[in-house]
Amino acid sequence: MCSGRSKVGSDVSTFDFRVTAAADILLIQMETGAGKKRIILLGATGSIGRSTLEVVENLASEMEIVALATGTRWEQMLEILKRHPARAVALTDPSAAEALRQSLGRDSAGGAGQPRVYSGAEGLVRMVEEAPAETVVGAISGAAGLPASVAALETGKDLALANKESMVCAGRILNRIARERGRSILPVDSEHSAIFQCLRSGRREEVRALILTASGGPFRSAPRERMARVTPEEALAHPTWRMGAKITIDSATLMNKALEIIEARWLFDLPGEKIRVVIHPQSIVHSMVEFVDGSTISQLGPPDMKVPIQYALTFPARRPLAVARLDLAEVGRLTFEPPDLERFPSLRMAYEVLEKGGTSAAAFNAANEVAVDLFLKRRIGFLRIYELVEHVLSAHNVVPDPTLEQIFQADRWARDEVNRIQA
Amino acid sequence: MCSGRSKVGSDVSTFDFRVTAAADILLIQMETGAGKKRIILLGATGSIGRSTLEVVENLASEMEIVALATGTRWEQMLEILKRHPARAVALTDPSAAEALRQSLGRDSAGGAGQPRVYSGAEGLVRMVEEAPAETVVGAISGAAGLPASVAALETGKDLALANKESMVCAGRILNRIARERGRSILPVDSEHSAIFQCLRSGRREEVRALILTASGGPFRSAPRERMARVTPEEALAHPTWRMGAKITIDSATLMNKALEIIEARWLFDLPGEKIRVVIHPQSIVHSMVEFVDGSTISQLGPPDMKVPIQYALTFPARRPLAVARLDLAEVGRLTFEPPDLERFPSLRMAYEVLEKGGTSAAAFNAANEVAVDLFLKRRIGFLRIYELVEHVLSAHNVVPDPTLEQIFQADRWARDEVNRIQA
Repeated sequence: MCSGRSKVGSDVSTFDFRVTAAADILLIQMETGAGKKRIILLGATGSIGRSTLEVVENLASEMEIVALATGTRWEQMLEILKRHPARAVALTDPSAAEALRQSLGRDSAGGAGQPRVYSGAEGLVRMVEEAPAETVVGAISGAAGLPASVAALETGKDLALANKESMVCAGRILNRIARERGRSILPVDSEHSAIFQCLRSGRREEVRALILTASGGPFRSAPRERMARVTPEEALAHPTWRMGAKITIDSATLMNKALEIIEARWLFDLPGEKIRVVIHPQSIVHSMVEFVDGSTISQLGPPDMKVPIQYALTFPARRPLAVARLDLAEVGRLTFEPPDLERFPSLRMAYEVLEKGGTSAAAFNAANEVAVDLFLKRRIGFLRIYELVEHVLSAHNVVPDPTLEQIFQADRWARDEVNRIQA
Repeated sequence: MCSGRSKVGSDVSTFDFRVTAAADILLIQMETGAGKKRIILLGATGSIGRSTLEVVENLASEMEIVALATGTRWEQMLEILKRHPARAVALTDPSAAEALRQSLGRDSAGGAGQPRVYSGAEGLVRMVEEAPAETVVGAISGAAGLPASVAALETGKDLALANKESMVCAGRILNRIARERGRSILPVDSEHSAIFQCLRSGRREEVRALILTASGGPFRSAPRERMARVTPEEALAHPTWRMGAKITIDSATLMNKALEIIEARWLFDLPGEKIRVVIHPQSIVHSMVEFVDGSTISQLGPPDMKVPIQYALTFPARRPLAVARLDLAEVGRLTFEPPDLERFPSLRMAYEVLEKGGTSAAAFNAANEVAVDLFLKRRIGFLRIYELVEHVLSAHNVVPDPTLEQIFQADRWARDEVNRIQA
């Protein structure tokens, strides 16, 4: 395990000793006395959830799933429980929870050894609080994931966060709780995981800029007239990543990148001026960190979410993972271009949100969630998403340094406001 | 300095605490009790030497030049001494040393406060041994730099190494001395500095491959018939880097990349199977590390040697450096292709050298040095360089695990052998 010690007496390089010695200190701290890492997985039936299960199966000797949550898909949950016999399950949809309970009762004829089933949004939070675990993987979509993120950190668990909306809406509060409880918020988003990995090559004080890459989505070079006529089917056809519907639409509008700018601001504690975006259609360079000495460190890899998920779960160690190997000679070329802020006003709005602060991010995110939903239901056009979010952003009464309750209020107000003007 | 402690009580991110805490441990160790870092610069009038002087001037509050060496250019050395009043100077050319001595005597009318002048190859080594310093920057070209590299480590100094031939010829021995004396060998080559920086994102045990990038030189896509007629002028026109004559020819033959493969093997203590080369004509990605989890970390930047030089001198810290900023959106694209081992047999030879081990690297390097010299003097054609090196490699009687003296013998034998068959 400790490369520093194992080298003594052998005939090898010494230069990297001080680097690896530092990593080893972390690993020794993290590995001493550790049994398996116990994981609570929220959003188990979604895209990130399924990849997380694969990662855990691959590393079964060092981690296990102890609790699972999803929204309505109780039959899928039954399948997952066969491979991952968790002690607790939460379904935010009460009737789905009831269906799962009945099915589990039937199967086991008595229920001994069956998981406890939690029901509803409150049940989800209670499960996160009660299940003993080291890490919560937060992979619920949307601001709905925030209460569970808070509960995870409040009860002393690390938070491996795919639910970027938690950090967008309440980054300041989550950071405060994590610090008070001595826990970590580990990024699962591929871009933020890339930055997290690159930051190991320097210190936060030495960062000149974080550079988020964006594929540009399916309408990267579409003229505005074309974008006005985009259908949900077209918007759901992402060029490089396979993901859920909400995040795929967000990738097409670049709202996803806007949310990522805000997320990065809180995850890495750097001001908006130090966070930039570059369009990179191949999605191979997942993001970069530019340091003050002119060095830029980037992380590259196949577009497979198992890489950042596993990194969040094994950090600071890396474990073998069977993913497609990157062969740049085969890829041939990587291209980069500046983002078009005229056709994609979302990025501009992100910096406006950071400027305004307080509850503006929660309002921005909630307006976008409702607008995306309306677009998917064919009730509004593609460009109307921007108009609705822009309207909410300018109409919102910002509460500076808000409480969680004030953040939820801003979220509700923004949803009502979009529905009101769109009714 | 310590980001971990300075954050307590403030309202910021915590996730990176464990990462930066590790870096801070290193920094605290390195900065406590430290006055200015004293540097001995060997090869002061060359390309790396001049860039090193700029770096030191930029960081004058934390480092200083205490000794300087060059070959023959005593007038240039006089100029350097005006800005960097070193206490010792070595000129390997005895008549140049004498000229410098006389000129210094004349200027100072008595010599009080004047530097001590060392003369000849032995004088250079004695200066490295006697001058009190923390770090030796080894930027002499060719195997001639090896005795000074040994002297630096033997007398307890860190070695910032641009002289890759030292590591190529005697990597095992230099590593052994460094370990015994508790000193570091820090890479200055842009590719190895890139790998050194990327390795901070993981541990050596987690490395799947080191990927050295190569510009491919001016004849990257030239047919073999064309290469047969290459002139020294054409070969000296490197597409991306401005460097000395020897290394520029080595870049055109890809012998430079062959030497870098061997250098990487010793610097990073990884076997040849884990070291790969990819052609990247823009020279913006300076090299990469692929880890076992599918993540590849790369270092990018402008083609300016001040970046790796400064990194070797400030490691593990990074300091602001005024170099051109990398703007990938402006660069537009980065391309990659596999190396052509038919037209550039140098890479194949590098793996053969690693396979054979022992003195074969010293013979390989010496043969190449003489062949390049003959090419620059128009005594042989471009492709003859490969033939001569190949001949020496197959005719050489390998001494396994050689002493330094055996390495010097192999070096001399290879030089004589090339001159003999070319006479």
